[in-house]
Amino acid sequence: MLRLHHHPMSAASRFVRLVLGEYGERPDFQEERPWERRREFIALNPAATLPVLIEDSGPPVVGGTVIAEYLDETRGVFQRDKRLLAEKPAERAEVRRLVEWFLVKLENEVTRYLVRERVFKQEMRAEEGGGPPDASAIRAARANLKHHMRYVGWLAESRNWLSGDRLSYADLAAAGALSILDYLGEIAWDQEPLAKEWYLRVKSRPSFRPLLAERVRGLAPVSHYADLDF
Amino acid sequence: MLRLHHHPMSAASRFVRLVLGEYGERPDFQEERPWERRREFIALNPAATLPVLIEDSGPPVVGGTVIAEYLDETRGVFQRDKRLLAEKPAERAEVRRLVEWFLVKLENEVTRYLVRERVFKQEMRAEEGGGPPDASAIRAARANLKHHMRYVGWLAESRNWLSGDRLSYADLAAAGALSILDYLGEIAWDQEPLAKEWYLRVKSRPSFRPLLAERVRGLAPVSHYADLDF
Repeated sequence: MLRLHHHPMSAASRFVRLVLGEYGERPDFQEERPWERRREFIALNPAATLPVLIEDSGPPVVGGTVIAEYLDETRGVFQRDKRLLAEKPAERAEVRRLVEWFLVKLENEVTRYLVRERVFKQEMRAEEGGGPPDASAIRAARANLKHHMRYVGWLAESRNWLSGDRLSYADLAAAGALSILDYLGEIAWDQEPLAKEWYLRVKSRPSFRPLLAERVRGLAPVSHYADLDF
Repeated sequence: MLRLHHHPMSAASRFVRLVLGEYGERPDFQEERPWERRREFIALNPAATLPVLIEDSGPPVVGGTVIAEYLDETRGVFQRDKRLLAEKPAERAEVRRLVEWFLVKLENEVTRYLVRERVFKQEMRAEEGGGPPDASAIRAARANLKHHMRYVGWLAESRNWLSGDRLSYADLAAAGALSILDYLGEIAWDQEPLAKEWYLRVKSRPSFRPLLAERVRGLAPVSHYADLDF
């Protein structure tokens, strides 16, 4: 049995949910608000970061990239042409580079700020860091996002899927993170038509449906969010 | 042939140098100052982060954790009991969790700030971000470091090596990062005697020698830095 501790606005959580969906796994979900530092959750992961996966009575598997490696070793390796991590070391390195790009670099330059300022601060109490959004943090994140979208456009132009010929972890990490920014209406898709075409292909996969159906309390998504043809 | 693009004050670079040393590899080294955004370097890695490994005429392998996976797949797998990443998926997940802890969490809460304020800012031109150190950033990083050292002490008390019974990537990531903070005289070893005992064991390995012999221009290390019995 699998249990995933996650949050709908955590990019790494969305990435892992997509991977589990592609591999046909249906975990139990436990939503965590990491800023609350729930005692049982800190015992699982003293870093208080998401996601955390528990399989049966095994130890916690902590973090998006670590869970992805675990799922490759326990599921992916048996998936033949549906495996989401390539076979050759150099190709695996390229998939992993892009996963880090979207779960670390995009996160540190864009996603973390927009989610904190526009979503989490509404839900946090004042002593947890809640309050009005910081306009300068939002502005800086939006400026950074333009560069990232240009890079996604360049990847989509150069390759069939982001890391090469096949759907891989790179596509799921990128689309998981971008789907959060899209929910918030932050992405100017018309400026990057090839990125949009690629995103529509990922978004149309059955593994994406649960994410598109989900709503954040008090915050409606942009009108095209769940459209498969926008 | 292996070529490593690195910087002596980059924790992920030190981690990879230790791994290469343990596996008996002697790469060519190219020192990069990432803030200069050297054009040939950006072509290898548009994220402009360190380290980057090139093998023969293969594509760049980018980032500490990605290089570690690449080296496990191309070297570690043949090393039997000297392999630095465990064999079982759950144990591999624990090693990776700790590598992320020291290369991402410690980096984002401590190392990045102390290195930027105390080292890089001296070398940067004003338009690159150089200037006098920011005392409040240094203070915050030092407060965070205490918590991290307590965690290292707890790991060293609970286990023989940080991730379990054998030397692993976790020890090399932790010791690589902490060796930078130690160079800067930031670590109060006497407050964590078990962490100190563990660090001395890692520091005594032949793979560590090149790091201990290295000096940053204009900045002498703390007096005990290279002692194997302090």
